[in-house]
Amino acid sequence: MKRICLSLAFVLSLAAVAGQSAAADDLQARAKALFKPIPAKPPVLKGNPATPAKVELGAKLYFDPRLSRSQLISCNTCHNAGLGGADLQVTSTGHGWQKGPRNAPTVLNSVYNIAQFWDGRAKDLAEQAKGPVQASVEMNNTPELVLQTLNSIPEYVKLFKKAFPGEKEPLTFDNMARAIEVFEASLVTPDAPFDRYLKGNRKALGARETAGLKLFIDKGCVACHGGLNLGGSGYFPFGVVAKPAENIMPRKDKGRFAVTNTSADEYVFRAPSLRNVAITAPYFHSGVVWSLKEAVDVMGSAQFGIQLSDEESSAIVAFLGSLTGKQPKIVYPLLPASTDVTPHPTL
Amino acid sequence: MKRICLSLAFVLSLAAVAGQSAAADDLQARAKALFKPIPAKPPVLKGNPATPAKVELGAKLYFDPRLSRSQLISCNTCHNAGLGGADLQVTSTGHGWQKGPRNAPTVLNSVYNIAQFWDGRAKDLAEQAKGPVQASVEMNNTPELVLQTLNSIPEYVKLFKKAFPGEKEPLTFDNMARAIEVFEASLVTPDAPFDRYLKGNRKALGARETAGLKLFIDKGCVACHGGLNLGGSGYFPFGVVAKPAENIMPRKDKGRFAVTNTSADEYVFRAPSLRNVAITAPYFHSGVVWSLKEAVDVMGSAQFGIQLSDEESSAIVAFLGSLTGKQPKIVYPLLPASTDVTPHPTL
Repeated sequence: MKRICLSLAFVLSLAAVAGQSAAADDLQARAKALFKPIPAKPPVLKGNPATPAKVELGAKLYFDPRLSRSQLISCNTCHNAGLGGADLQVTSTGHGWQKGPRNAPTVLNSVYNIAQFWDGRAKDLAEQAKGPVQASVEMNNTPELVLQTLNSIPEYVKLFKKAFPGEKEPLTFDNMARAIEVFEASLVTPDAPFDRYLKGNRKALGARETAGLKLFIDKGCVACHGGLNLGGSGYFPFGVVAKPAENIMPRKDKGRFAVTNTSADEYVFRAPSLRNVAITAPYFHSGVVWSLKEAVDVMGSAQFGIQLSDEESSAIVAFLGSLTGKQPKIVYPLLPASTDVTPHPTL
Repeated sequence: MKRICLSLAFVLSLAAVAGQSAAADDLQARAKALFKPIPAKPPVLKGNPATPAKVELGAKLYFDPRLSRSQLISCNTCHNAGLGGADLQVTSTGHGWQKGPRNAPTVLNSVYNIAQFWDGRAKDLAEQAKGPVQASVEMNNTPELVLQTLNSIPEYVKLFKKAFPGEKEPLTFDNMARAIEVFEASLVTPDAPFDRYLKGNRKALGARETAGLKLFIDKGCVACHGGLNLGGSGYFPFGVVAKPAENIMPRKDKGRFAVTNTSADEYVFRAPSLRNVAITAPYFHSGVVWSLKEAVDVMGSAQFGIQLSDEESSAIVAFLGSLTGKQPKIVYPLLPASTDVTPHPTL
């Protein structure tokens, strides 16, 4: 009897394991259909191929505060490569300590976004790069002054020649943006636990993260946050079911409406990529939510009209934590010295 | 006749070369007695030995804007390791876009200075590091808030334990400063052309630079700018012979007088190190002079009551250019992510 009982228990446990395993296989198969791992190498940009010289120049420009009128603010100030590619601000602080209108999106993996800015108003990273340089609340500069500054520094003149060989006029505002684009495109974060999971390693996610992934798919988050970047690939209304509080979704910022002037685009935003989201608080375009769990709860009620249980949102947060990839290793660039004819900063 | 003439010319030219060579040897010998090359390795700090864990922690803290109340300003903002260890500002811009009282001195080789700040009010880099963190016009933080912030980030708690093993309370404001000190001490720039010259390679300096070195010694610059750091080792009055213009030496900033309250210390400053001076404009504690040549001219008239010729000051500038050493190679540190209990920035 005892032996039969034990055998039965053994058979049952085997069946349970097999069932779990089948469910896990099923979830992994669904995940593979909905998401893609970040490739180890950055993509090749159409019309703007990466060369070592161009990446080197782009890195210097990215970290150079002389792109700003104050010579104090660089791209890296708000898109800090050591801080998940973003800043720690509700909305970014720029020239004259002014507050910008929206939270700084991460630069990491941004090359995989369909377009740039929260409202997608820049078609690519090169176009994006020219925005903050000129925005009065950000770097408050002009293309003319940027070119005067860069041209006053012989080492930059040389680096532009090397990065854009054969061009009649290598040092232009557009080429500045192109070099920055190529550098930014190199800032990808492959090899997150979730990427390893997608590549076949089921153990790359723990039980809680797996449960979170299942919820993320079943509740519908994946509808806007799918694909390679778990977001970043389309435009969606914020507050589909219930408008979030005014501080979270300020009514005066109508999102993509400002770009398209189409009423259907009111409060429509490019869904942000959720890669590295665990290390890029605060959240939303308003930047007022500091806790990722709270952000998940807000999404539940705003987009689906549901109140996630504590266990559910915690599991989703655990899954989101598995999206933190290998951060880019950057040698801090040495910036060419100014000369006697370099324009001085203006505060 | 012709043969004799040629021989005579040959003999004369030989003698001239020998004379030049002897003069060069003499100058090199004098230089060796007055200056020292930067050692390849940073010095060992008394009571604060460097370990890889401590340097790693120090690098993160140095680049972490969370040491400031706004979470926007790091040590590197004003002492930019990619910009000769300084900023591009007349006087540094800090919290709320406020202007600081003096030009930011370079962090490079600062470990070799007798004391820190223009007036030497901090005895070492650890003491210095605690100043700007708390200064209201700089990072505007408090030790309490810094500790609350660092303690809210588990990775920092771990890094402090590793950096200060065996200590009862590893995460303290003092240990923060000690870690930063050890990192800053690693920011040395050996192997400048002048260092190679001091080590015996006479060809490391060109004719113009050698002429500048000779003037630098003969005119008396070396009196305040000698030794390993060509300055940084003592306190000297600015405007010995003639007070510079009010904008260059603002009369209300009495320098070391504020530290010692001794009338002899009015307008006395720690002579700045001239290492890397060619890449750290603008100049003087007031930061209003952008051209190194102009700075040299000001020193001539203020300290010696002489008007250097264009050729003389140009030669000295060429010599100063030979003080630019190998800049430190830094891997841009990845900063530990904030958590839900990390204090938020205050602008």
